[in-house]
Amino acid sequence: MSKNKPETILGVLISGGGTNLQAIIDACASGDLPAKVGVVIGSRPDAYGLIRAESHGIPHFWVDRQAFNSNDDYDKEIVRRLKENRVELVVLAGYMRLVGAPILDAYPDAVINLHPSLLPSFPGAHAVRDALEYGARVTGITIHFADAGYDTGAIIIQEVVPVHQDDDERTLLERVHKVEHKHLPYAVKLWATGRLKREGRRVKILPKHTGG
Amino acid sequence: MSKNKPETILGVLISGGGTNLQAIIDACASGDLPAKVGVVIGSRPDAYGLIRAESHGIPHFWVDRQAFNSNDDYDKEIVRRLKENRVELVVLAGYMRLVGAPILDAYPDAVINLHPSLLPSFPGAHAVRDALEYGARVTGITIHFADAGYDTGAIIIQEVVPVHQDDDERTLLERVHKVEHKHLPYAVKLWATGRLKREGRRVKILPKHTGG
Repeated sequence: MSKNKPETILGVLISGGGTNLQAIIDACASGDLPAKVGVVIGSRPDAYGLIRAESHGIPHFWVDRQAFNSNDDYDKEIVRRLKENRVELVVLAGYMRLVGAPILDAYPDAVINLHPSLLPSFPGAHAVRDALEYGARVTGITIHFADAGYDTGAIIIQEVVPVHQDDDERTLLERVHKVEHKHLPYAVKLWATGRLKREGRRVKILPKHTGG
Repeated sequence: MSKNKPETILGVLISGGGTNLQAIIDACASGDLPAKVGVVIGSRPDAYGLIRAESHGIPHFWVDRQAFNSNDDYDKEIVRRLKENRVELVVLAGYMRLVGAPILDAYPDAVINLHPSLLPSFPGAHAVRDALEYGARVTGITIHFADAGYDTGAIIIQEVVPVHQDDDERTLLERVHKVEHKHLPYAVKLWATGRLKREGRRVKILPKHTGG
């Protein structure tokens, strides 16, 4: 499900600002992450992540759902763009659409999603606000393999973020983002260096240098 | 909802081994916790916690659900035993029954439950096993005010417990129990010293020495 060579080619799917895309770009540039972003695809024309891609000379596209008859057709077009750019690992970095069978089938165990809560707590589009309103003392982030459900796939990494008593959505979101930016490139690195082994719902992180 | 005097009288409800009851008894004995256990009530005749109570000279009862026509009647009998022993705070320490309106109405914001997960993840009777099977990287404990639902009340304390790659249910349970034994007496102390203030679902922990 993963591989071991100098540069894994990533396709990053976004819907918004793309700060996690930026974290990945930076980690690639610094040499920490043996990968490069081959293409960025946005589900919205105004996703700022597209501008980030442009400024780094990375191929980038807005794919307009309105131009397709079905979600499947939309996803097939995304797969076409990914394959065209020789993408090996798909990273959902603030991508607000469910990825369907065309993408999952083309990239088995090779679509990674990032979610701003400790799943299965607080799935959905408002995870940080929901955690605050629930009165949770801790929340966090989950990086997981995407599957056909919303925020249900096998977990690669979870990291805790404390909720402070005086937090509002903005302060908590900021703390969550910092943790995302640190761990998403790490999760991509684990995949790119062949260190992830999924067994059903449990994902094993293999030790370094297993010669895999 | 809470109070400030030397010794808060606790009623502890159990269904099993009572290791958390023991942690409370020990914290009271050491002087860490300004409280004493006034009565222990078991929902099962073989709950080992009843023996622990006996060995510490604490009044203890098994209340047999079969002897009552309804859950309400059963809970009313429990309230009678609690009041008889002048209990001010009810602690559910491994109590495997839902507490109903008679108990909640008699003890508003004064029934504390302990659950072995980071709620709302993994509610129910098999929280530790469920976390393992889900492939969670972290789980933990939640101490919360009981309400009419299962594991849904306002959260007082949550603490994280890591899940190790080689954990089975026994090793993870052991790690979870250690955290329970540390935090449950602390949560009781916060209540007993008047430091908990519930506002809807969010519970504020007040600083020490507010003169409350």
